[in-house]
Amino acid sequence: MEKAVKIGVLGASGYTGADLVRLALGHPLVEVTLLTANTHAGKRYADVFPHMFAENLPELIRIEEADWGTVDAIFCGLPHGTTQDLLSVIRKEHPDLPIIDLSADFRLGDPATYAAWYGRPHTAEAAQGGAVYGLTEFARDALRGAKLIACPGCYPTAVLLALLPLAGPGVIDATDIVVDAKSGVSGAGRGLKENTLFCESGEGLSPYGVARHRHMPEIEQELSKAAGQPVTISFTPHLIPMSRGELVTCYVKTAENGAKALRTVFEARYADEPFVHLLPEGTAPRTQMVRGSNHCVINVFEDRIPGRAIVIAAIDNLVKGSSGQALQNFNVVFGFEETIGLAQTALFP
Amino acid sequence: MEKAVKIGVLGASGYTGADLVRLALGHPLVEVTLLTANTHAGKRYADVFPHMFAENLPELIRIEEADWGTVDAIFCGLPHGTTQDLLSVIRKEHPDLPIIDLSADFRLGDPATYAAWYGRPHTAEAAQGGAVYGLTEFARDALRGAKLIACPGCYPTAVLLALLPLAGPGVIDATDIVVDAKSGVSGAGRGLKENTLFCESGEGLSPYGVARHRHMPEIEQELSKAAGQPVTISFTPHLIPMSRGELVTCYVKTAENGAKALRTVFEARYADEPFVHLLPEGTAPRTQMVRGSNHCVINVFEDRIPGRAIVIAAIDNLVKGSSGQALQNFNVVFGFEETIGLAQTALFP
Amino acid sequence: MEKAVKIGVLGASGYTGADLVRLALGHPLVEVTLLTANTHAGKRYADVFPHMFAENLPELIRIEEADWGTVDAIFCGLPHGTTQDLLSVIRKEHPDLPIIDLSADFRLGDPATYAAWYGRPHTAEAAQGGAVYGLTEFARDALRGAKLIACPGCYPTAVLLALLPLAGPGVIDATDIVVDAKSGVSGAGRGLKENTLFCESGEGLSPYGVARHRHMPEIEQELSKAAGQPVTISFTPHLIPMSRGELVTCYVKTAENGAKALRTVFEARYADEPFVHLLPEGTAPRTQMVRGSNHCVINVFEDRIPGRAIVIAAIDNLVKGSSGQALQNFNVVFGFEETIGLAQTALFP
Amino acid sequence: MEKAVKIGVLGASGYTGADLVRLALGHPLVEVTLLTANTHAGKRYADVFPHMFAENLPELIRIEEADWGTVDAIFCGLPHGTTQDLLSVIRKEHPDLPIIDLSADFRLGDPATYAAWYGRPHTAEAAQGGAVYGLTEFARDALRGAKLIACPGCYPTAVLLALLPLAGPGVIDATDIVVDAKSGVSGAGRGLKENTLFCESGEGLSPYGVARHRHMPEIEQELSKAAGQPVTISFTPHLIPMSRGELVTCYVKTAENGAKALRTVFEARYADEPFVHLLPEGTAPRTQMVRGSNHCVINVFEDRIPGRAIVIAAIDNLVKGSSGQALQNFNVVFGFEETIGLAQTALFP
Repeated sequence: MEKAVKIGVLGASGYTGADLVRLALGHPLVEVTLLTANTHAGKRYADVFPHMFAENLPELIRIEEADWGTVDAIFCGLPHGTTQDLLSVIRKEHPDLPIIDLSADFRLGDPATYAAWYGRPHTAEAAQGGAVYGLTEFARDALRGAKLIACPGCYPTAVLLALLPLAGPGVIDATDIVVDAKSGVSGAGRGLKENTLFCESGEGLSPYGVARHRHMPEIEQELSKAAGQPVTISFTPHLIPMSRGELVTCYVKTAENGAKALRTVFEARYADEPFVHLLPEGTAPRTQMVRGSNHCVINVFEDRIPGRAIVIAAIDNLVKGSSGQALQNFNVVFGFEETIGLAQTALFP
Repeated sequence: MEKAVKIGVLGASGYTGADLVRLALGHPLVEVTLLTANTHAGKRYADVFPHMFAENLPELIRIEEADWGTVDAIFCGLPHGTTQDLLSVIRKEHPDLPIIDLSADFRLGDPATYAAWYGRPHTAEAAQGGAVYGLTEFARDALRGAKLIACPGCYPTAVLLALLPLAGPGVIDATDIVVDAKSGVSGAGRGLKENTLFCESGEGLSPYGVARHRHMPEIEQELSKAAGQPVTISFTPHLIPMSRGELVTCYVKTAENGAKALRTVFEARYADEPFVHLLPEGTAPRTQMVRGSNHCVINVFEDRIPGRAIVIAAIDNLVKGSSGQALQNFNVVFGFEETIGLAQTALFP
Repeated sequence: MEKAVKIGVLGASGYTGADLVRLALGHPLVEVTLLTANTHAGKRYADVFPHMFAENLPELIRIEEADWGTVDAIFCGLPHGTTQDLLSVIRKEHPDLPIIDLSADFRLGDPATYAAWYGRPHTAEAAQGGAVYGLTEFARDALRGAKLIACPGCYPTAVLLALLPLAGPGVIDATDIVVDAKSGVSGAGRGLKENTLFCESGEGLSPYGVARHRHMPEIEQELSKAAGQPVTISFTPHLIPMSRGELVTCYVKTAENGAKALRTVFEARYADEPFVHLLPEGTAPRTQMVRGSNHCVINVFEDRIPGRAIVIAAIDNLVKGSSGQALQNFNVVFGFEETIGLAQTALFP
Repeated sequence: MEKAVKIGVLGASGYTGADLVRLALGHPLVEVTLLTANTHAGKRYADVFPHMFAENLPELIRIEEADWGTVDAIFCGLPHGTTQDLLSVIRKEHPDLPIIDLSADFRLGDPATYAAWYGRPHTAEAAQGGAVYGLTEFARDALRGAKLIACPGCYPTAVLLALLPLAGPGVIDATDIVVDAKSGVSGAGRGLKENTLFCESGEGLSPYGVARHRHMPEIEQELSKAAGQPVTISFTPHLIPMSRGELVTCYVKTAENGAKALRTVFEARYADEPFVHLLPEGTAPRTQMVRGSNHCVINVFEDRIPGRAIVIAAIDNLVKGSSGQALQNFNVVFGFEETIGLAQTALFP
């Protein structure tokens, strides 16, 4: 059977690119026909990733060599700041080619916020506002037939799935939210940095970007919309000695015994979601539940302090936090069943 | 679509059991309808394994409660020594029910060898000889329609895929084979043992069973058949601080410049195999190539010492080394396409 | 030179016992002359711990076999609930023998609180109140010549070093403290539990005891004393895939721009402490800084939300969080220089 | 007390440099007064290594800035090829300054061998031959008062301690030696390389330099001297997902039941060695026994194949395999007690 949709993956030599290719290989309607990686152009994909040794895939080429007319959709796993420059090049001749961007380029709707956090003005401001923020479970209508999708960052995905249903008026106090976040090392990418060497990040634990991480404005943008008021959160991420996985522990204030109420909200909101799961009462979300899969597990716990609750969510940062969600968005854009190609059980141990 | 074949997994609370269930959930023709785990009977499978939280699976029951008439095939992930006792119970009323055994119970054809290595006489000697030794790539004819399949141990799978094509007369010296083997901790099972605690096996490396491991007679049985003479090998396994993965480094003697000849043998033997791959010259097999997948990667290197070569093979011990190969055998037994349900790319990182 | 003080280590087959022995072997004034471990009685210590293979140490005996008259001090690394029963036995003939307890038995001054959290009444209530709570930096006067020292738990050590200087009136809001804690797997002890197997706790991250951990009343007891009012905290620990190390991230409320004020408090309080270090502004504490050492590193960060600050502390849970602090207390009790035997640099990588 | 000997550490920003500084800080007769690291010149040492945050050490400078007249000995942890160029610069004014080199520059006595394996002619051939090969246990006489010491590589240290006592005539067959070696990731250094990223080397196992590693000529040089004949070995190293530790499994041929004879040789040779230990019969060497310490553990096992034995040795690659042995050599050079500063017990877990 010929596969229905031809896709290109830009920035294919990074971890998100590779996980997108991995998932696409298992997607019955997708064929990977274009792979770019500027520093590795001319190599076989198997030379760049050990687990691709047996796959039949196109050779890596430079972006400049790409023929955009040969693909039906593009996934961009490029470094932040790159997709916005590329956009006008592609749009000139292919105004309707769906572009699913995994970078931060189109996540922030406000140009000033973008400039403040990324230290440079945006070069495609016009498109910026028109991009769909692709947290799938909250964006399906907008996604159908969309042409530019900004996939959420990994931390925003986990935090928003945990807090967005609660952010509306009367559930939690949107002015007093603390998020303690933990991520595996793959979240830092495949670039060569001393702090992601095995000997530096192994057998140890490091906070980073304390109260200053670039995912904060993105989380706040979405929470503010839901809350109907400006929301600022306290957010501190930590680097954990594991390759994959992300867990966020959210400390919120609510009415006394409010954990039960939060539980009810989650039950209603996520009952029919294929990838977002409220766990049985008392079961703590763990990253081991979701490794390699597109699932998100959530639970809510009552604190001993009256009026406080703890909401915990876990995802695989490379799947639901990046490439899996991108493919989920792709399915919605193209009108396919949303779970197609994403149904695999997590890998444990 | 109703799934074609109903299967039972006995000993489902161990790692091999869980990986079989994981793979079966992705197999389009298989339905898991029976799960046993005596110490966990009455629990949901999700209570026993974190990654099964969202799966719709039968409750765990005791073996005594199983109704064998409800399943079309059985996979046994029971402790060594258990399946041989169970066999007669099942066979009484279900003489033709295919039983795919992942334990060591039916791997050794010779009762005396079994008794010597396992410290007890075999309780189903008659059946022992009739079992098919299920190293799939070397057993397809015997597997078709077979009723009792003994799946090879994890080390034997890797070693035999590396050495069996070479063991015939005139290729390597079958009397001088050294195998240095390395395995991840999941190979030791899920039972509670001090040496498999995180703090004991992490950040360190331990040889064990030096020159005395129970997988030796199994390897030797098959190599001897291929060599046409009794073969004894030197075999030393090591416990490596990783969960999955197994790599065997085999030191063999051959004619001068013999590595090239070995390469030719492998090319011919494995050219059409979907799961066994000779890597390009110079590329070292790594367990990262196969994590979570049913593939085996092999390569051969010329030593600096004339007349010596080094053959290296890597597998995922829980997949090709156990549950994946069991499912591959199942496919052959039932006449399905051999790769069905086993085509997933490895998980990296 | 004959060593000055003979010590016994009870419960020597656990990780805290072993780390105490490791440190004692490097202490120039201490000789280990008594080691108990009931389940391993009769074994050499080298048979119980791999790294002790070359040490000249007494054989393990049962507690009942101990001759308390042969030692000058006792370190108790026994399971919770055991030391309180043992106390009267020892005290009968040795009323003045210094006992340094690493368990939770004498940490809580209030019998009702003990009973509530440990599910049983205390069996040595009289002694309970008289024990010195041995957070060394805050207990030196009481420690000198003390006969019963309750060493703080690992989490309390890190949290109290981070928050005790701030808990007094006017610095932070003692009614609104959130502590997100992370620990390596050795914190769970050497007992055989499924969740501390390599395959279960590796490559993943798990919250546990969410808002319900037994270290909470201990932390609250000390913070309440310092605050002069009852303090309840929000506390959630997480199991991290590393053997050693503990990091606590404390979210506090303070006056606007309060982080600077907190910094000043820390500078004054810890300027002369040999083991507690305020890091340079902007440097995040990491467990890699302290692995194997008795140091605690602390830093304070201003949040983006006015009136909020983040205090982070890291220790090695087995050293400053347990055995190292016990030895530090021992030095104070005996009037030795406090850093003796504890001056080693951390092990990195 | 003023410390007796002032030392300089060149190349202090690498792992071996840092471990030398760590050990020197615990050496009662040594003061570190000079630290060079060209790419980090001007920084505090605490800015380069997390675990040095509290140490009082000189600022990092460039080699060109060093005043060789201020130190009594130099440890060189420079990249291979650098020390040989530096030597003549230092020697011009300081002909007698002891230089303890941790690189490969002076390990190979034969210039042709050096050129063949390192791809360039040696630039200090005259000095090359005069260097003492510092495998301490076999070089004490030569070390006393020596001016140029070439510390062995990590693999050669482990292999030679395991095989050198056996290499003489009549014990093992020196023409048939297979060494399967395993090392932690710190052995690859601190330079930025993709294969030593956490996500690349974690949860997996990779052979490298199969039968072609640069430590081979060094091992062969020493074995040949001991054997009185040219020795070529089969040697294959593997990268293991742990930071520290190295284990070599050596497959040798000997007379039937020869393992007992080998045991006797080891007992005689190492009975009085403070850092080399023959383990009790049947106990497998593990890297967990020696992490962070200068010890080497060895054992010999009889193979099932008559005439074969297996010798296993484990060290910490950064300590006995590098900086610890360098300090041990330093002690001998200066006439100090050999174990001074090196007596610490390994860190476990």
